[in-house]
Amino acid sequence: MLKAEYKTRGPVPQDVIEAVEFELPAVAAGQALVKVLAAPINPSDVLTLTGEYGMLPPLPAIGGNEGVGEVLEVAADVSNLKPGQTVLLPVGCGTWRTHLIADAKQLIPLPSADPQQLAMLTVNPPTAYLMLRDFVELQPGDWVIQNAANSGVGSYLIQLAKIRGLKTINVVRRDSAVAAVAAEGGDVVLVDGPDLPKRVREATGGAPVKLGIDAVGGASTDHLANSLAEGGVLVNYGRMSGEPCQVNPGSFVFRDVTLKGFWLARWFRQATPQQQMQLFGELIQLIASGKLKARIAATYDISQVKEAVAAAASGERDGKIVLVP
Amino acid sequence: MLKAEYKTRGPVPQDVIEAVEFELPAVAAGQALVKVLAAPINPSDVLTLTGEYGMLPPLPAIGGNEGVGEVLEVAADVSNLKPGQTVLLPVGCGTWRTHLIADAKQLIPLPSADPQQLAMLTVNPPTAYLMLRDFVELQPGDWVIQNAANSGVGSYLIQLAKIRGLKTINVVRRDSAVAAVAAEGGDVVLVDGPDLPKRVREATGGAPVKLGIDAVGGASTDHLANSLAEGGVLVNYGRMSGEPCQVNPGSFVFRDVTLKGFWLARWFRQATPQQQMQLFGELIQLIASGKLKARIAATYDISQVKEAVAAAASGERDGKIVLVP
Repeated sequence: MLKAEYKTRGPVPQDVIEAVEFELPAVAAGQALVKVLAAPINPSDVLTLTGEYGMLPPLPAIGGNEGVGEVLEVAADVSNLKPGQTVLLPVGCGTWRTHLIADAKQLIPLPSADPQQLAMLTVNPPTAYLMLRDFVELQPGDWVIQNAANSGVGSYLIQLAKIRGLKTINVVRRDSAVAAVAAEGGDVVLVDGPDLPKRVREATGGAPVKLGIDAVGGASTDHLANSLAEGGVLVNYGRMSGEPCQVNPGSFVFRDVTLKGFWLARWFRQATPQQQMQLFGELIQLIASGKLKARIAATYDISQVKEAVAAAASGERDGKIVLVP
Repeated sequence: MLKAEYKTRGPVPQDVIEAVEFELPAVAAGQALVKVLAAPINPSDVLTLTGEYGMLPPLPAIGGNEGVGEVLEVAADVSNLKPGQTVLLPVGCGTWRTHLIADAKQLIPLPSADPQQLAMLTVNPPTAYLMLRDFVELQPGDWVIQNAANSGVGSYLIQLAKIRGLKTINVVRRDSAVAAVAAEGGDVVLVDGPDLPKRVREATGGAPVKLGIDAVGGASTDHLANSLAEGGVLVNYGRMSGEPCQVNPGSFVFRDVTLKGFWLARWFRQATPQQQMQLFGELIQLIASGKLKARIAATYDISQVKEAVAAAASGERDGKIVLVP
């Protein structure tokens, strides 16, 4: 059995994480032994390794926040799970490992579908879904603009917007990312730059853009703010540029733009169990039926965790990095 | 008769404005001739000269947005005004001149009080009042933080907060500005810097700061954002640093800070006449009774408008520049 562990945090994430052998005790009452099938590396995982995330687990810790596994063995008193069942791992349990033991009632049974796609259920899809739903009331035909459109969240956002009949303007930072985003169904795909607002107006025929989604920061935040209609809302959820959000005050003062943030962890704290079940029920159906999926750039096993984290931390990849223990 | 006119806009505001002689026709039916007593130079006036404001009048134009005058003469059919009456000039009429003719019903009679203080009624006091009232519900004892605390709006905000029982943390950019802000009743006065949030927590004993008011932009916006409690609201109304607002995404994402803008011109468009009368009725009483006042750094006549504008555009003054034709 292998786990990807870190004992310190530091600026180069692949330097602090390493694959370590470990043993598990026997399964106790109420528990199940699970073989991990797939666990992605999200930007928030990388920021947790560098110490830049808003919530940091005590050290030493095992990397990974989400994943999917297969039940290998259950305690005699467990009746709701059987060996062979695909399950969602508890969020935040440290999913970058080959095996884990968990309370059976914390393991959510999943339909049989591609485990790599199901493994990405709990972080990126609800982020995209809730940012589209909870800040601005949008009607079919309305426009939304996002940057980092070739990210995991960006890809889910394109697909979820299309399901709702919304149109997306998708901003990327390099020409080589345009084709993949267009292939995913982005209505408009533009490379970022100071003249972005002008190109947005040309692309939409001047239709108002009511919602902007920013995962980049720096001047890119200003380009989105300037592309929004008067009274528009800009939601930041990341800092891929490593820079603070920069916005000319004129957008706030003269055009009544509002800049807010979205953090899935806060939503989890505030949403009722019913609200969570409703959201994840819908997302599981969409993923299991293949209507919602993410591109996967590469898969690695736990012994390759350093290479996997280095690949995930690079800005030049084209799809998710997934650990397949 | 002299007026301060500009025919072009440009980066050095005192270069585009000049005092020009002019004549007025005879007073026609329904009109009044007014001698201007006092008209301030606000930051928005300077930005109008440089072309950076959100609303620019057609050229050529007369500078000045607000002021107070004395009625010299009324047409025979005017019954609501008499010579000698102090009146508020119509907002946006170009107040930097010695005389003007206006429709009598556009001239609002004012109580007899210091005309220089009354001349500053319509721009800065409602800005401070509405930013304190319309973004966060504040109770007596609650803390508010603002930068540019030695500005006109900053000074009114300190006084209006005190009237409401709110406590203010006042941020300035130089040591030499501290004493005047403290003398005006600022509860805490701090010089800006990257460690501002730490000094704010020390000064408030860790009490939550729910509202921030930013007129500076640049890194100063980030210092305010980091000083706010979780869920706090930051309102920008200016860009005295000339730089875009810079805010680390963590404030939005992890601490749920919201950044909005305030523009008095939008409020004027949206507020009902009743709402406007109620607000200005309250402010006129406070100013006429001496409970609300602004420091005046210097007065100039219209022939000195270039020196006056240069003084108003400088960051180092200590009080308003007022034209006293």
